[in-house]
Amino acid sequence: MRMRRAIEAAVFATAIVAVVACVSVSGISAPARAQSQTQATMALPKDFRQWVFLTSGYSMSYDANAGAEANPRFENVFVNPSAYQAFLRTGSWPDKTVLVLESRNSDSKLSINKNGRVQTTPAGLSVHVKDAAEGGWTFYVFKGGAEQGALIPKSADCYSCHEQHGAVDTTFVQFYPTLIDIAKSKGTYKANAQ
Amino acid sequence: MRMRRAIEAAVFATAIVAVVACVSVSGISAPARAQSQTQATMALPKDFRQWVFLTSGYSMSYDANAGAEANPRFENVFVNPSAYQAFLRTGSWPDKTVLVLESRNSDSKLSINKNGRVQTTPAGLSVHVKDAAEGGWTFYVFKGGAEQGALIPKSADCYSCHEQHGAVDTTFVQFYPTLIDIAKSKGTYKANAQ
Repeated sequence: MRMRRAIEAAVFATAIVAVVACVSVSGISAPARAQSQTQATMALPKDFRQWVFLTSGYSMSYDANAGAEANPRFENVFVNPSAYQAFLRTGSWPDKTVLVLESRNSDSKLSINKNGRVQTTPAGLSVHVKDAAEGGWTFYVFKGGAEQGALIPKSADCYSCHEQHGAVDTTFVQFYPTLIDIAKSKGTYKANAQ
Repeated sequence: MRMRRAIEAAVFATAIVAVVACVSVSGISAPARAQSQTQATMALPKDFRQWVFLTSGYSMSYDANAGAEANPRFENVFVNPSAYQAFLRTGSWPDKTVLVLESRNSDSKLSINKNGRVQTTPAGLSVHVKDAAEGGWTFYVFKGGAEQGALIPKSADCYSCHEQHGAVDTTFVQFYPTLIDIAKSKGTYKANAQ
């Protein structure tokens, strides 16, 4: 697993698809998953950009010696609204939680902005799903604007890294500033999360 | 107006409060505005973090010579869901559109992240509201976690900058990557926006 893929997966927390609750008056539809026996693919949740935003990281990396990137990326994380509501109440993710990690390229001298970076074109997309029927969390990667994501094998580093370092239920709540205190108050935050 | 305030305001587009449409099954409530004659204050839309995310900028600045900041900030922009839906249909913002600009401090060596930056504590909050009854767009600033925002006088630079540089209806749609093509296809994108 390439480093960028690993860090993309690592930014995640987790999420579930509560189909009825997702259909709101604002037209947000529930994410759909392919009904194959193997669950080797997953349909892209089309309205994920209307889900709840958790954070945006900038040029994140595991590698302390990586240095400045020529074209650093942003990583935006979204969660389906019903899973977010459940987390506010319980400090944990319900079954069928779906987290979407959207990477975007960046630019600097764009319009009136003369320094720092702004988000531009899509650069990658992956999804983290909690499904008890499949034994827990699963990652899918959507390449090049694909509408069907491919399963990331459970032997991949992202799974073990999330298990080891995720602050809440194998998810990286330590990077979601609005959820940290909620998890701590509910007793779901792993004390030694690093 | 200080530079950071100016760039915060400049990141904005605009938004309306369609009260009924905002009340969804996920419990998102409509933002409320103070009913004073002067409209000198505005109540913080409490659920803005469950609104639609438009972008996150990183260490943005008007100043090409600003150099690297010791503690660069992220700027997250949210819009109320009904205004977002209207924009998807029309390429323009309806009356009562509300945009929230949330600034957050950043950190680098946090948990498994060893490079780049992640979002941390709140660093500022301002709101941009479209209200025909008040003659158009108005900015409010919420200082230090305040629940009531203070009107930014219409003589401030943010108003003239938005008028001059905003790609759509005095708003900075050029920084909202998912809305640019929509505005262009609807003919609402200012051709010479810079």
